[in-house]
Amino acid sequence: MSNALVPVLAVVGTGLIGGSFAAALRRVGQAARVLGVGRNPASLQRARDLGLIDEIADLSQAAAQADLIFLATPVGALAPILQELAPMLRPDTLITDAGSTKSDVARLAREILGDRHTQFIPGHPIAGSEMAGPEAADPMLYHGRKVVLTPFEDTPGLLQHRLIRVWEACGARIALMTPEAHDRALAAVSHVPHFLAAAYMAQIIHAEDADTRLNLAGTGFRDFTRIAAGSAEVWRDIFLSNRAAVLRELDGFDQALQALRATLEGDPDPAALEALLEQAALARRFWGGRSQM
Amino acid sequence: MSNALVPVLAVVGTGLIGGSFAAALRRVGQAARVLGVGRNPASLQRARDLGLIDEIADLSQAAAQADLIFLATPVGALAPILQELAPMLRPDTLITDAGSTKSDVARLAREILGDRHTQFIPGHPIAGSEMAGPEAADPMLYHGRKVVLTPFEDTPGLLQHRLIRVWEACGARIALMTPEAHDRALAAVSHVPHFLAAAYMAQIIHAEDADTRLNLAGTGFRDFTRIAAGSAEVWRDIFLSNRAAVLRELDGFDQALQALRATLEGDPDPAALEALLEQAALARRFWGGRSQM
Repeated sequence: MSNALVPVLAVVGTGLIGGSFAAALRRVGQAARVLGVGRNPASLQRARDLGLIDEIADLSQAAAQADLIFLATPVGALAPILQELAPMLRPDTLITDAGSTKSDVARLAREILGDRHTQFIPGHPIAGSEMAGPEAADPMLYHGRKVVLTPFEDTPGLLQHRLIRVWEACGARIALMTPEAHDRALAAVSHVPHFLAAAYMAQIIHAEDADTRLNLAGTGFRDFTRIAAGSAEVWRDIFLSNRAAVLRELDGFDQALQALRATLEGDPDPAALEALLEQAALARRFWGGRSQM
Repeated sequence: MSNALVPVLAVVGTGLIGGSFAAALRRVGQAARVLGVGRNPASLQRARDLGLIDEIADLSQAAAQADLIFLATPVGALAPILQELAPMLRPDTLITDAGSTKSDVARLAREILGDRHTQFIPGHPIAGSEMAGPEAADPMLYHGRKVVLTPFEDTPGLLQHRLIRVWEACGARIALMTPEAHDRALAAVSHVPHFLAAAYMAQIIHAEDADTRLNLAGTGFRDFTRIAAGSAEVWRDIFLSNRAAVLRELDGFDQALQALRATLEGDPDPAALEALLEQAALARRFWGGRSQM
């Protein structure tokens, strides 16, 4: 018997997110054996060569052996995986995921797992990188990062506690909330920025003098637009699955933009313009100081 | 006699921008003597202690001795400085500036310097940092960066050539254009991103659950909002002086935002949403590859 928090871990999707989770637990000796599951044999092979996983397995082997199943696939791939796992699931197996939206995942888990939905605790590590694939896996990816868990009302405290200890072993800090609160917050601080950066980027390339403009773009432009380079497929799914919250946040942004714009239009109001800019600057500096990022 | 490109350089405003210019030219032996001019005695003293300037001077000494006068003050401070310099200016002295907008600076130079406006070549180094003050001065700040120069139609080619050589000695790459083209381009790639980031930041702190939201903000949020931390006073002046171009660009952004939003509203159109996101992602990746930033 292993003394590790997770005697047998199964990681479904052994790229950046799944590979880093396995690496983080291995690093602190809290995952004794790691099974890797996935659709891409070459990627699984590389994950094994890199020592992220011990064995390549399928979902039935994962269901039979794993104490914790970590689903690190795109949200769109979750449904068929849960459907396949459902009839094979041992009663003491814990499942979690790493998707960017949580209401839809919680709904899926209820629908597909039925009474066993409490074995699934939806999760979202707020960490990532522009890189992808097992080569990008990093045992420190979650260190000091927030991980949101959205347990069901009837999820036993013991299960929640188990998962919290596992994430804390990876160096993460845990926030517990409802899926709806998570989705509202993420719409505000992640999805809307991406939406705005993408709209901005789509617009700027259509200017007649786009080339002149892009030639003069500096570090402000670079940082403001960085997120727009992300996978169109991944972000399409995020926007669709968190549609209502994103649209509501966009309404709020639009009001703020019109208010700021009003200080510049017609007869400009320099004092009001400066006051709004100062408010924004203070808020950003306060956040930066607090988050140490 | 010195063989340096600039035997005597006067820097008005010895903070990040002015101090880095002096340091860059000193580093390659192209400024033999550097006079520092400014309103803040403590800052000038520090610039001298740091070796950025040789002597603290006033504008009349700068006018009498300098071959090149580099104005690195806020745009709002330019008018009184030019007024003071105008009657004292030697016919072979070249003046340039580092302001973020150029139409207003070109207009000021014509109004105040009259026939001698051709001795002034408006400039804008596209470089900066969140830091300020002489301590932040860096001889490599302009290395590999674009510097826009907006000479007048009647600026002698020889003067333009002199200034180009000076900036190239700092490691910069030169772009020549009209003040209007510069202001349009900068509205697009710098001012509008700042405007949007500020509106976004001003909005997010007013949410009821602002604290929860900001707690979940990650690296995407960090980069997207970084520019919003900039000086409210500096940016107020930039928006006011480039008002028409900024408002025009904001209209363009608004159209792009509505187009992207339309793919998500009502009956969502996932394919159109993905196509727009993909367009933005490709544009950003192409820019990133080209700019090596």
